[in-house]
Amino acid sequence: MEEQTIRVQRSETKKEKPQSDQLIFGRSFTDHMFVMDYSDPLGWHNASIVPYQPLSIDPSSMIFHYGQSVFEGLKAFRTESGDIQLFRAEKNLERLNRSNDRLCIPQIDEEFTLKAIKQLISIEKDWVPSAEGTSLYIRPFIISTEAYIGVAPSMNYKLIVILSPVGAYYKEGINPVKIAVEDHYVRTVKGGTGEAKTGGNYASSLKAQEIVAKQGFAQVLWLDGVEKKYIEEVGSMNVFFKINGEVVTPQLNGSILSGVTRSSVIELLKHWGVPVSEKRISIQDLYQAYLDGELEEAFGSGTAAVISPIGQLTWEGKDMIVNNGETGELSKRIYDTITGIQYGHLDDPFQWIQGIEAKSPVKH
Amino acid sequence: MEEQTIRVQRSETKKEKPQSDQLIFGRSFTDHMFVMDYSDPLGWHNASIVPYQPLSIDPSSMIFHYGQSVFEGLKAFRTESGDIQLFRAEKNLERLNRSNDRLCIPQIDEEFTLKAIKQLISIEKDWVPSAEGTSLYIRPFIISTEAYIGVAPSMNYKLIVILSPVGAYYKEGINPVKIAVEDHYVRTVKGGTGEAKTGGNYASSLKAQEIVAKQGFAQVLWLDGVEKKYIEEVGSMNVFFKINGEVVTPQLNGSILSGVTRSSVIELLKHWGVPVSEKRISIQDLYQAYLDGELEEAFGSGTAAVISPIGQLTWEGKDMIVNNGETGELSKRIYDTITGIQYGHLDDPFQWIQGIEAKSPVKH
Ligand SMILES: Cc1ncc(COP(=O)(O)O)c(C=O)c1O
Ligand SMILES: Cc1ncc(COP(=O)(O)O)c(C=O)c1O
Repeated sequence: MEEQTIRVQRSETKKEKPQSDQLIFGRSFTDHMFVMDYSDPLGWHNASIVPYQPLSIDPSSMIFHYGQSVFEGLKAFRTESGDIQLFRAEKNLERLNRSNDRLCIPQIDEEFTLKAIKQLISIEKDWVPSAEGTSLYIRPFIISTEAYIGVAPSMNYKLIVILSPVGAYYKEGINPVKIAVEDHYVRTVKGGTGEAKTGGNYASSLKAQEIVAKQGFAQVLWLDGVEKKYIEEVGSMNVFFKINGEVVTPQLNGSILSGVTRSSVIELLKHWGVPVSEKRISIQDLYQAYLDGELEEAFGSGTAAVISPIGQLTWEGKDMIVNNGETGELSKRIYDTITGIQYGHLDDPFQWIQGIEAKSPVKH
Repeated sequence: MEEQTIRVQRSETKKEKPQSDQLIFGRSFTDHMFVMDYSDPLGWHNASIVPYQPLSIDPSSMIFHYGQSVFEGLKAFRTESGDIQLFRAEKNLERLNRSNDRLCIPQIDEEFTLKAIKQLISIEKDWVPSAEGTSLYIRPFIISTEAYIGVAPSMNYKLIVILSPVGAYYKEGINPVKIAVEDHYVRTVKGGTGEAKTGGNYASSLKAQEIVAKQGFAQVLWLDGVEKKYIEEVGSMNVFFKINGEVVTPQLNGSILSGVTRSSVIELLKHWGVPVSEKRISIQDLYQAYLDGELEEAFGSGTAAVISPIGQLTWEGKDMIVNNGETGELSKRIYDTITGIQYGHLDDPFQWIQGIEAKSPVKH
């Protein structure tokens, strides 16, 4: 297949970059974005880097009605020596294609898209912040744009990549949160779209989140939609528990997102020789482990926070206080190691890192 | 509460209207649309009728990432005397607000929105087709527009109403379809968003639909997401069965959309004295009724088709042929009565109809 060229149209104005200590997640965006169109029989075409700008989309387009869309989230990090590097980006593009499959969206060329992302970042390199804990959040997403209000896969799509400089997730050190076990609302179910990163899963989660936030919880812990018994995820993170020296996380079952951080945590633990397993975990068994004094640590894992320790889990009015509400030792070690690799302070025995050249020329 | 005024900006050009016999569902739209914005603390404001045009939306807006959106679908009909009338429109606006609640979208003023829809239609009155079986499809929808990629309810929304002249659903007479019972994929589940008319439910349904279409089926019959045992809906319609003289339809259980046509069918049957009940129906029991020769009719109900007879239902390789693959007598009678009321050929004992004055002035 002949490789596409990427047309570049530079922005004539430059936005002011926010101060490193004033970065808020997902609120400011860089000067350019990557856009690529899909139509039949052209396939993906029109790859271009253009000034960041509003999208002009017909009001009858699919995306506004039937939610046919997918997205990804990953980060680029600035090392002490000033280099910029990506963390396991190819995993995100593989997952994007798995999401595409579930949502009947045409597959993308992962290698080409990764190249495009690198070229975009290299153009926006001054936007990659360097203060401790900051990074450049990368949001690729695909929306269905056919101007037709019928329930059928769209004939047209746009793949867009936008970039947002983000601040340190933990401003005052890594900080355990309170979580409520959700026993009414459901995020998704086996046979549904839980394995895919698609808008509907997140829209569906807003209500439960809104209710528990009013009760002082940071997030919900989702149970499976079938039996409301087995633990799935926490907020938009995967979840891990250290029980009696062993680390467990819910096994991928079709309704759980296969997190890149999740897989990194598992690899790391195996590398360290810490027992880790993926299995079905019931909330009842977890509570029993708590009563038995065996629930040693609990944490969420995801690109935004890397590791988010859980200090309290509340289920049917019963509070489980984990590790005295403090960050566990293993949680901290995982956090320090993954972020250490991401920022280049630590060696990368897993080849999770790839650099972005200041100029990354794309073949013409 | 002081009522908003609706600003009207007329289109300078007029599109050519498609021929009545060339109308395709959801592909052509009228010259104007209604738009209203939401923000804090203004609430819903800026109500305006403007030329139909692309929406200009920031690429970081919620709608492109987290699917926070709802919609409705209803129709306006042209009577023989040339009048234009709406069918149970207030039901659709009530449902829109129930969907809003589930999706954490602020409530709309139903009465005002209905007025706006009427004013829009009255401006577009020449777009309401008059050939038999044609109508003007009305699509109100709300999208989340805040430029922020964080998983939380948006602070900004747009409510938009677009209009599409649509052709007769049955060009060669009402026509039974083949349906496949879906036993792998799930549309939604109890605790999810099935009761709401929101994009994610439809995005999630595309894959199963695509698979069965290749096997020659028109739609899938959805089973419940928990036990995969109980009948929920058919495609994007509610479903009815006539078994041994009694009509049954799945009871509303949290994952089934409460269809306006469904409720009309139930009212009509009660009015006629035909036994009808809403209950849990297992696919196993339905199959048994079929084997016992008691499955007399089966049909879907929805705004688009009104009644869509099911001629064949295939479950785990077993074909149930309903009424010799022909439209049942009761199905036909319901279809004729509802469409008769919609087009004004028949009396409307239920007060389902409201007229639209050629000019429907909104108070200023
Ligand atoms: C629902 C959900 N689960 C888990 C994760 C964690 O995945 P990752 O580690 O790839 O960020 C995410 C995304 O961040 C998510 O949206
Ligand atoms: C999922 C689903 N079920 C049922 C229906 C039928 O509802 P109504 O009769 O209000 O059109 C619709 C909408 O048309 C729908 O989208």
